Amino acid sequence: MQIPIITLTTDFGYKDPLSGIVKGSILSINPEVNIVDITHGINRFSVREAALTIGMSYRQFPPRTIHIVVADPGVGSSRRPLMVVTDKYYFIGPDNGVFSVLYNESERFEVLHVTADHYFNHERSATFHARDIFAPIAAWLSKGIGSSNFGDPIKDFVRLPFPVPKMPTRTALEGEVIQIDHFGNAITNIRIEDLKLLRSVNPEGAIRIATKDIQAPLKEYYSQAEDKGLYALINSMDRIELFVYRGSASREFEIRVGDTLGIILVNG
Amino acid sequence: MQIPIITLTTDFGYKDPLSGIVKGSILSINPEVNIVDITHGINRFSVREAALTIGMSYRQFPPRTIHIVVADPGVGSSRRPLMVVTDKYYFIGPDNGVFSVLYNESERFEVLHVTADHYFNHERSATFHARDIFAPIAAWLSKGIGSSNFGDPIKDFVRLPFPVPKMPTRTALEGEVIQIDHFGNAITNIRIEDLKLLRSVNPEGAIRIATKDIQAPLKEYYSQAEDKGLYALINSMDRIELFVYRGSASREFEIRVGDTLGIILVNG
Amino acid sequence: MQIPIITLTTDFGYKDPLSGIVKGSILSINPEVNIVDITHGINRFSVREAALTIGMSYRQFPPRTIHIVVADPGVGSSRRPLMVVTDKYYFIGPDNGVFSVLYNESERFEVLHVTADHYFNHERSATFHARDIFAPIAAWLSKGIGSSNFGDPIKDFVRLPFPVPKMPTRTALEGEVIQIDHFGNAITNIRIEDLKLLRSVNPEGAIRIATKDIQAPLKEYYSQAEDKGLYALINSMDRIELFVYRGSASREFEIRVGDTLGIILVNG
Repeated sequence: MQIPIITLTTDFGYKDPLSGIVKGSILSINPEVNIVDITHGINRFSVREAALTIGMSYRQFPPRTIHIVVADPGVGSSRRPLMVVTDKYYFIGPDNGVFSVLYNESERFEVLHVTADHYFNHERSATFHARDIFAPIAAWLSKGIGSSNFGDPIKDFVRLPFPVPKMPTRTALEGEVIQIDHFGNAITNIRIEDLKLLRSVNPEGAIRIATKDIQAPLKEYYSQAEDKGLYALINSMDRIELFVYRGSASREFEIRVGDTLGIILVNG
Repeated sequence: MQIPIITLTTDFGYKDPLSGIVKGSILSINPEVNIVDITHGINRFSVREAALTIGMSYRQFPPRTIHIVVADPGVGSSRRPLMVVTDKYYFIGPDNGVFSVLYNESERFEVLHVTADHYFNHERSATFHARDIFAPIAAWLSKGIGSSNFGDPIKDFVRLPFPVPKMPTRTALEGEVIQIDHFGNAITNIRIEDLKLLRSVNPEGAIRIATKDIQAPLKEYYSQAEDKGLYALINSMDRIELFVYRGSASREFEIRVGDTLGIILVNG
Repeated sequence: MQIPIITLTTDFGYKDPLSGIVKGSILSINPEVNIVDITHGINRFSVREAALTIGMSYRQFPPRTIHIVVADPGVGSSRRPLMVVTDKYYFIGPDNGVFSVLYNESERFEVLHVTADHYFNHERSATFHARDIFAPIAAWLSKGIGSSNFGDPIKDFVRLPFPVPKMPTRTALEGEVIQIDHFGNAITNIRIEDLKLLRSVNPEGAIRIATKDIQAPLKEYYSQAEDKGLYALINSMDRIELFVYRGSASREFEIRVGDTLGIILVNG
């Protein structure tokens, strides 16, 4: 019998006691649980950033981990609380698109509309469902209550559209920046599979990456950059990332979420 | 036998290793303890903010939880180390008012002046009592040493005065902003009980809330706000809170701790 | 059988999910481990700051604690992954000098070049060795795999030179600021032993501390300062520290890492 794991990914920040209170709410129901912070640094109310962040993280945890994800501008309104059950994991949070990356990546999953309010905290605030609904649901689930006891499957859950790379010609890819990280690196929606597809056209060809008329030579790791210019690499999430070595691509080259990125295959 | 819980509420910040060192100090005495961060983001030396923060948090934890609270400008001076014992919880920290909210809220409690220095770390710094006194005391307490072994009860502990709402007439309340949170929401000292009392005068009446000549219509949850104006709601701690939906009340309306807030009951 | 402890000291920050992902990587191999954050707030790529930070922290943990330290500008290059084994602790991280303080402080230690890649994650990124190499190595070590299974001892590991206090005369010490903490306190390389040596010349003498032509009177604790001037004390790590009570020495007196500090012994 292994100690269950519950992770937290929220926009609560680190100043207020909100993440601590959520942990208290979980531990009051199940004290024998290992609570792991993924981050509380999501930009406030940024559902998209929360979706990308849990999308980058969940696979690294052991099977049966329960992931709570909270960026919840609609808290208190009629937006539904959800539990998503995949082959390996559970996810708990609001029905506003925070699970969109999972929906795109999971072959099989079920989305439950959580309605079993006898598992919620008895007194419920309209503004802190993480404490009063998501935490107790996760805690009861971690104690072995089967997921089907929490609500019925639904099909009309919210899915956020994430920009998909385009292939205007057989030798060109067009993507965009989807996130700026803590270091100012610009993470894009172009994945290693997209690059492989491009390269398959001409295995001898060379890759050219550019954004805003700036060439970003492809490197394997950060310290391979020769200077303070803009470079690209395939990051640890298998995505193209723009970076400045020991600097900030975002600040120094004014790169923002939504900026487009072109990749072409030229004769090697 | 349940694993004991020790929480940390401090002004250590997240850059220096102070909170990690305190955890090491606890685990060196009792490795079988679950340490939970409430926050390390209290403004430096802000005893008042620490008092409000633990006041918002402690009730969410299971009985017998040990709460360490450290905002301690007088560390090293003759200010006393305390252990507060209530019906459900233990609190450990300096005698400077950090426990004032508990004193106001607890029906029965005992305040011990901790003097049993054989439980302290052998080498003690004058500037890091969290590591050398509070952490070891909490760790020994969590191992089952009875609270009476740590010191004798005192009555002359420090209590900070917190501003209490006034009721200038039977249909008016006057309160003030006591804290600005991470999101720029302004938390006030007016509680749901105060509102109920006001409403009891005329159950058909309507509530009007204003600060600095700005009306703040009362909503149930954040996304009910129709625009970027100033609104109020009863927050998850049962207090009146001023907010801007997807914005910062503090920044956009220049609301600060100490600003007054008027509430009147008018004919509905 | 005590639950093993793994600590994390990194430059990952608190916005991205990197520290959470590292924890997932550890827990996937050994779910029965207690992971403690020392800090994720090291300045990006600051090997020197990471070395000082773990140097201030490691001794506070129980014997057999495993410390992971990551500030790793050369990730992906040929810099080696290391395991350092001392009498009491294990340390895991890159061979770039992050362990320099330990090397200076430990009487006996062994440095292993970690080469046993069957313990690494199967798919390895060139930019996230904390997830793919350091975390799995720590997790396997915590499960009881002996350290000698991870690689062979080396002697040519990287040691950063840290500035050593000078003694230009028998009654003078010259040191420098080595770190500015979260509060703006300036931590120096002068230790209590250096002061004792100085004082031994004339036990009746008095200490005078100055930096940038500003006298910083020596106090025992912060609240002993009479005003907002610059003061010094011996901090909880037994080092001379410059501070402004309820203020920031760094900001208010423009003190920076590398600034020199003079101490003289005068007739008492």
